[in-house]
Amino acid sequence: DRGNTGRATSACEPWGSVLGSVNPDLASERQTASFSVEKLTALLDGGTEQTRIRRAVVEAIESDPVFSRENQYFQTQNERYESAVRKAVHLQKKMHEMGWTENGPEYKALAGDVAFLLHRVFMRSISVLGSDKQIAKWIPLATQHKLIGSYAQTELGHGTYLQGLETTAVFDTATQEFILNTPKISAMKWWPGDMGRSATHTVVFAQLYVHGKCYGIHPFIVQIRSLQDHSLCPGVTAGDIGPKMNFEHIDNGYLLLKNVHIPRENMLSKFCEVRPDGTYVRQGSQKINYFTMTTVRISLISDEVLTPLMKACTIAIRYSVVRRQSKLKPGEQEAKILDYQTQQEKLLPQLAAAYAFHFINDYLQELLNRGYIEIQKKNFDMLPELHALSSGFKAVITQHCTAGVEICLRACGGHGYSLLSGLPSLYTKILASCIYEGENTILLLQAARFLIKCFMAASAGQPVPPSVTYLAAVKHGKCPAKNKLDFLSPDIYTEAYQHVAVRLTSSTAEKLQDLIQSGVNKHDAWNQCTVQLVQAAKAHCHYIAVKNFAETVEKLETKAGIQKIMKHLCDLFALHGIFSNTGAFLHDGYTSPAQMDMVTASYLDLLAVIRKDAVPLVDAFDFTDKTLNSALGSYDGQVYQRLYQWAQKSPTNQMSPAYETYLKPLLHNTLSKL
Amino acid sequence: DRGNTGRATSACEPWGSVLGSVNPDLASERQTASFSVEKLTALLDGGTEQTRIRRAVVEAIESDPVFSRENQYFQTQNERYESAVRKAVHLQKKMHEMGWTENGPEYKALAGDVAFLLHRVFMRSISVLGSDKQIAKWIPLATQHKLIGSYAQTELGHGTYLQGLETTAVFDTATQEFILNTPKISAMKWWPGDMGRSATHTVVFAQLYVHGKCYGIHPFIVQIRSLQDHSLCPGVTAGDIGPKMNFEHIDNGYLLLKNVHIPRENMLSKFCEVRPDGTYVRQGSQKINYFTMTTVRISLISDEVLTPLMKACTIAIRYSVVRRQSKLKPGEQEAKILDYQTQQEKLLPQLAAAYAFHFINDYLQELLNRGYIEIQKKNFDMLPELHALSSGFKAVITQHCTAGVEICLRACGGHGYSLLSGLPSLYTKILASCIYEGENTILLLQAARFLIKCFMAASAGQPVPPSVTYLAAVKHGKCPAKNKLDFLSPDIYTEAYQHVAVRLTSSTAEKLQDLIQSGVNKHDAWNQCTVQLVQAAKAHCHYIAVKNFAETVEKLETKAGIQKIMKHLCDLFALHGIFSNTGAFLHDGYTSPAQMDMVTASYLDLLAVIRKDAVPLVDAFDFTDKTLNSALGSYDGQVYQRLYQWAQKSPTNQMSPAYETYLKPLLHNTLSKL
Repeated sequence: DRGNTGRATSACEPWGSVLGSVNPDLASERQTASFSVEKLTALLDGGTEQTRIRRAVVEAIESDPVFSRENQYFQTQNERYESAVRKAVHLQKKMHEMGWTENGPEYKALAGDVAFLLHRVFMRSISVLGSDKQIAKWIPLATQHKLIGSYAQTELGHGTYLQGLETTAVFDTATQEFILNTPKISAMKWWPGDMGRSATHTVVFAQLYVHGKCYGIHPFIVQIRSLQDHSLCPGVTAGDIGPKMNFEHIDNGYLLLKNVHIPRENMLSKFCEVRPDGTYVRQGSQKINYFTMTTVRISLISDEVLTPLMKACTIAIRYSVVRRQSKLKPGEQEAKILDYQTQQEKLLPQLAAAYAFHFINDYLQELLNRGYIEIQKKNFDMLPELHALSSGFKAVITQHCTAGVEICLRACGGHGYSLLSGLPSLYTKILASCIYEGENTILLLQAARFLIKCFMAASAGQPVPPSVTYLAAVKHGKCPAKNKLDFLSPDIYTEAYQHVAVRLTSSTAEKLQDLIQSGVNKHDAWNQCTVQLVQAAKAHCHYIAVKNFAETVEKLETKAGIQKIMKHLCDLFALHGIFSNTGAFLHDGYTSPAQMDMVTASYLDLLAVIRKDAVPLVDAFDFTDKTLNSALGSYDGQVYQRLYQWAQKSPTNQMSPAYETYLKPLLHNTLSKL
Repeated sequence: DRGNTGRATSACEPWGSVLGSVNPDLASERQTASFSVEKLTALLDGGTEQTRIRRAVVEAIESDPVFSRENQYFQTQNERYESAVRKAVHLQKKMHEMGWTENGPEYKALAGDVAFLLHRVFMRSISVLGSDKQIAKWIPLATQHKLIGSYAQTELGHGTYLQGLETTAVFDTATQEFILNTPKISAMKWWPGDMGRSATHTVVFAQLYVHGKCYGIHPFIVQIRSLQDHSLCPGVTAGDIGPKMNFEHIDNGYLLLKNVHIPRENMLSKFCEVRPDGTYVRQGSQKINYFTMTTVRISLISDEVLTPLMKACTIAIRYSVVRRQSKLKPGEQEAKILDYQTQQEKLLPQLAAAYAFHFINDYLQELLNRGYIEIQKKNFDMLPELHALSSGFKAVITQHCTAGVEICLRACGGHGYSLLSGLPSLYTKILASCIYEGENTILLLQAARFLIKCFMAASAGQPVPPSVTYLAAVKHGKCPAKNKLDFLSPDIYTEAYQHVAVRLTSSTAEKLQDLIQSGVNKHDAWNQCTVQLVQAAKAHCHYIAVKNFAETVEKLETKAGIQKIMKHLCDLFALHGIFSNTGAFLHDGYTSPAQMDMVTASYLDLLAVIRKDAVPLVDAFDFTDKTLNSALGSYDGQVYQRLYQWAQKSPTNQMSPAYETYLKPLLHNTLSKL
């Protein structure tokens, strides 16, 4: 053994634990906050009472060991699933004990870490699409968990384009049954959550055929597993679709139907019904369906998109004042990495975006509430605008926040890449939000279609919905800013954003018309404009987000320093958008090159200003350590201790058979010859 | 049991397997190739003979079941590690059998899927940093695997900034030993590959102290595990750092040293030596160290960055001609998604970038070879330029290709998110390349420092290295393009790129000088310019990449259609860069808004042109199905069959204890009351 000399003291961790005592590099950041963190938290929650309730629920959940996420990063897909089922079952008990309801704030606190979320969608779809009789039959069964529901829409070969679904449901007047089939492999249901291993029932979307005629897509309740022993029902093949980037706790499934018979009563029939003789009857307005999609898209923004970005900012910013690297000046201590301009430029715009999108979410929620009231009165006028805004913002916010989480991850260097940082799982989860509930490019094109339509109407002097009236008032002026401070005026930058949105919409509308007039088929012409249409839709949403942020700041109380710091963030959000997209603002000379240099100067100045409050601004998000589940992001900033402590618990530190099987023979075969 | 009516035929897969027969939607794409795929493959390989050798090796590896990656997406971190060790040990045998050498093309074919890659780095560092005596002692031991080596540089608290490392090595003249210690938790070695579970030895970088004086960072060979039973050596604590986004097959480790004694001979002493009496002697030039880093950064581009992007393009483009979604025109069949302009705009620029960076890699390799020859002659003049180019391009290419892989993943919608698509693991792996071997922002700032220095020298009329002579010739003209076709002229766009690189460098140099002249400390001034310095460095690399692509196309044989399609890709690469970054080109009026509209028009036209050859262009990368390991990307395009077949093999389709433990009690507790 040609080893070391061998006189060493016994090894172990030679440092006492400092966990819980705040790292001085982090503590010092909190002493100089320019505003009241507690008041900002209350603002984000919607009031101090809401903060109190949220904290109480989080405490109740986190103090219950069944809900622990301690070993989450070490678990296999099977273990994650089993843990999610355990938590879901326990949650039922807990909710009963605590008197919580499904629509209360409690559900949110679990952050999607439980199974049976699709059971809720199953219930919602019956409530919305079912007849009163169907609701009376199925909702109590589902509420009492006498069955476990799922929602089978997407197919292996079909996603966002619902009309293309291929599963068939043929009505047989003789037996009064629908016969469901998966006619081709591309027609297999694929991706539905809770369906791979758990669900006993599911709502299947299929092409309805009666007397050989196709009536399009309709929803059917289909039992897929026995309530006695959970075996698959006759004609049903189902299973789990396997590993994914995240959502390992969810059993996304596949489903193949071969001559599966279901009673006539199982077609959800609030809007359409097949009578016993095969007569197809359509009743009521289906417009409400659009409203459901709109609701879903808006409701996912807060929990599934903003929360991950806020968590990522918390982790990356706390880490960036604890991590020291290189020297800013020779002879000094190594600098906190957040003191580097490049690090500020990565993280602080993400922080500003988190606030900007929090406020636009409030705006969308309020619009949705107004829309709902109108719809109750059978007034559907707001639907097109709501649909366009929810589509556009779903795409813009998921895209922006996904990029933001990735930036946070990379800004933490190697340690960000460790699962123990919490950042990889935030990234792989938020990434899915760009795809589900409508693929982003398709959604942006839907928003663009609305924009073009409104632009044409506005140009013709017709009335248009409030969010797009600005399209009518095309101004051909120039940006009036004279110096860099002028770019801290919301009027100046909001106007610039508006100008760009109008220009991109009008120029694309013009290109579209030119193509059609030159003889190009209108569908081909549309396709040839889609890259620019996407740009226009994004510019429209960006403009509204900036305008809404500025208006929100205006209304904030001037006390406690909150308005001041929010104003800085609003400026940063707006100027970062210009700085990152200068061409759009320079293009027609609205902003001059000299003005663009002023934007750059003001933008870079703002980074240094906001940097001082960076830690208090993420503290205000008020995430507990258990919620963050990050070795880098804990409140005490004891990053290195925690990484070491957590790594030691990894299953990879158990004895591996690889030594006896491979390493020992490799080393020993030749060792004798040493 | 309120089930379905129950008369169903027995379920199973009702379609025969079509695997192996090419999907007609993919086959038709190959019939219209405008060039010879086989000749393009040979061009990429560097000749038909190279293609033949590569294919033979791939065949030898892939036909050996020990190297199978069939179940890779289902494996735990422990299983991945064990499999990597098994493959590494088997590879030794295979190499001996086949007569392969470590530097031959065979190693590349395994694509990093084996353990002991750091063993190679261990050997390389001894070869480069060790004395002849040390090389004679250690290299044979390592070659024969009488030990397993690792390379312990990075610490928990220190990455790219090597001078900050905190591990200490104190020389004791009495015992003629170095005593190594980890004085603080932040000084633990963290991340070294092969160290967590496998290595017996490692090269430790530590601050050398002799007679109380610190001589800076030096490398020491330290044994960490027994060669007899693999137990940790006295004073050594080591283990695995736990789960990461990828690289689960590698046992990245931690290492804590407590009074570990090693003999004086274990300090690698080609350049520095501690004599028995404690005299410190420096010998020879250390400049070669920079050359090593340069070599590593350039060598990773091909295997670790370009290959993943090429694979991702292959998967996403093949999938995009098989996947159909929505209709381009009413009444038509659903369209291939690659026929949508937005999908082309996502994927085709990534394809063009893959080719652009392949050619810039050739350029860098050639430069490196020339540099090596000069260094052999003790001429170090090329080092600063080589260092700047390797730093800048490492950052630019890893960043661009990582973003490209993510775009490919997202362009495949939900199925891209499944691990079975192969895209998630390509993404999580390439992402690491932005962090390791020098964090990208730091590397770009190093390249920028070189640029600023050369710009100042050039402005003062002093000579500068070839790649930056253009900085001296600042031209203040305007872009001469008159119509959109002019933008298909390499002279036009190369000149535009050059203009932007000069402008960004000169304006940042000016800002830097202004700040210093206004009294700002020069280090603070530098920090205040870093966001813009990063932009300048990127513009410089982008310019060189465009210029090199255009020059390469110029030299290609005009036969077989290859020059023509490469010209299209070169144009697309250049115009996509302008289209995505219009502000930089518009800023000082070099390009007018009207010209920018021409760029947009030409760029969008090119998408439709290249779309026709998209499949042949990825076929030319010549990946086997086993190499791609993707259900979406196989040569036959039988996407849905393969997804279904692979999903059925997932461990999540084995019986779960969750049913008996949780689901059954939940359903049955209430079932009796139904």
